[in-house]
Amino acid sequence: MPHQDRIERALRASLAPSLQAGHPPALGAAMQHAVFPGGARIRPTLCLAVSQACGEDDSALSEGAAAAIELLHCASLVHDDLPCFDAADLRRGLPSVQRLFGERLAVLAGDALIVAAFEVLGSRARRHLSRLPQLLQTVCRGVGMPLGIVAGQAWECEPQLSLRDYQQAKTGALFAAATMAGAQAAGADGTPWRALGEQLGMAYQVADDIRDVALDSSATGKPGGQDLALGRPSMAHELGLEGALAEFHRLIQLTLQTVPACPGAAQFRQMIRHEAQRLLPQQLMERVAAAA
Amino acid sequence: MPHQDRIERALRASLAPSLQAGHPPALGAAMQHAVFPGGARIRPTLCLAVSQACGEDDSALSEGAAAAIELLHCASLVHDDLPCFDAADLRRGLPSVQRLFGERLAVLAGDALIVAAFEVLGSRARRHLSRLPQLLQTVCRGVGMPLGIVAGQAWECEPQLSLRDYQQAKTGALFAAATMAGAQAAGADGTPWRALGEQLGMAYQVADDIRDVALDSSATGKPGGQDLALGRPSMAHELGLEGALAEFHRLIQLTLQTVPACPGAAQFRQMIRHEAQRLLPQQLMERVAAAA
Repeated sequence: MPHQDRIERALRASLAPSLQAGHPPALGAAMQHAVFPGGARIRPTLCLAVSQACGEDDSALSEGAAAAIELLHCASLVHDDLPCFDAADLRRGLPSVQRLFGERLAVLAGDALIVAAFEVLGSRARRHLSRLPQLLQTVCRGVGMPLGIVAGQAWECEPQLSLRDYQQAKTGALFAAATMAGAQAAGADGTPWRALGEQLGMAYQVADDIRDVALDSSATGKPGGQDLALGRPSMAHELGLEGALAEFHRLIQLTLQTVPACPGAAQFRQMIRHEAQRLLPQQLMERVAAAA
Repeated sequence: MPHQDRIERALRASLAPSLQAGHPPALGAAMQHAVFPGGARIRPTLCLAVSQACGEDDSALSEGAAAAIELLHCASLVHDDLPCFDAADLRRGLPSVQRLFGERLAVLAGDALIVAAFEVLGSRARRHLSRLPQLLQTVCRGVGMPLGIVAGQAWECEPQLSLRDYQQAKTGALFAAATMAGAQAAGADGTPWRALGEQLGMAYQVADDIRDVALDSSATGKPGGQDLALGRPSMAHELGLEGALAEFHRLIQLTLQTVPACPGAAQFRQMIRHEAQRLLPQQLMERVAAAA
């Protein structure tokens, strides 16, 4: 089954309990809206790809890890869109959760998605229980303090920050959790996959910064120029558009060179090339080249 | 070591990672403020008391479960105090997290505390790994959808609700998680402890409703009359003060009668009597009797 189908199925299963008898209907609907339809699902795709590269032997666990990572990502988007942060009305081309359901349900939907992530992870470890503690630790460190995505968002509340540290926590940390958890779900050591995840996260963040300045909202599904408007740190502003493009390519090349030795390394590299093309479409490259 | 000391020590240890090198300082401080100094710590105390009653054999795991429950409770208070919910300026006699650190850090502190709860639970199961999946499930169900405390809070966003269902989710669910997790951390079956936890949660909620109408903020550490001011459902309004007091006593008696057979049942009943007195001090009982 293709990664995409496995991910959607695992996510649907993860949210099934939230729609069981007795649930408050608006919160159930808000959680669904936060997760479906999804974006590129790049983090869970990466998680499954690493798992497969490492010789996946427990699909329930790999899919549970992938779903947990994506639920945590969705939770962070819902909270990032709150009026006190980005006050975003659009997300993935649709009204954001806070816009559609209000601020209170957006707070709660984020909370409930975080809990659902840990519930699915805990429920999928039946066959390989010994892998659960490390998986939990990996996921918690990718999300929580001191260096996970919540910490990354908190750097936006500090008077001073380093752009690299900020983006490492805001984005790199959950990418690293995705690659490490993919390996750990397959019974492999997660450590060699950390740097690769961090590099990919950086590449993704740089691409996001580039798209924010170079594409309009019809292509990204959210308002353009938001980083500048919100005074948010951005690699595209720090390095300029061409500099940011060069940095993106450097990070992708570095990633390709640092794939750990594993049974499916070649196929994994192919997937990275494919994802890189999804992140920065040829059309943008050409527009940028023409403008330069 | 008394429960109180074990709980504070476990909570300090749970938050230690959030203060490690590289953390965003304001978020670290907001998390500390959300947890210390604590309130009555009634949920973790209950968790440890059940664990002991069931013949506790793994103090690290019991304390991890107790700390997880309390961190989740603290997270829910931080989010409940947000401007979009209660807009509370006071909590436990001190400025609330949102008042002291602002709305953004309050959202993030709640999120980070939820993650910290799962991190401590996952890290404490080394000696009895087989207990971890059930503990995770218990904690997730106490907090998440469809019937946990987040669902309880979401009922406040619905046009219609049943007061008992609302309070069961808003309060009873985490009490039930505390008693069940206490048993499970000791290797016992959690199921017989669910109803007891729910009853105690109900009793606690009724006591809270009573205190909201009958005590001023100097005694409760938060503004009085909030339930009425915020249009929140309250047993003290539904049943009147005397009716609510009678209901409180009924629930405590029911709890005492339904303690499951276990090595430490007698000592556990004593603890329940003690907690009941903490919840509704004699002074209040007398004032209420005099007013009636």
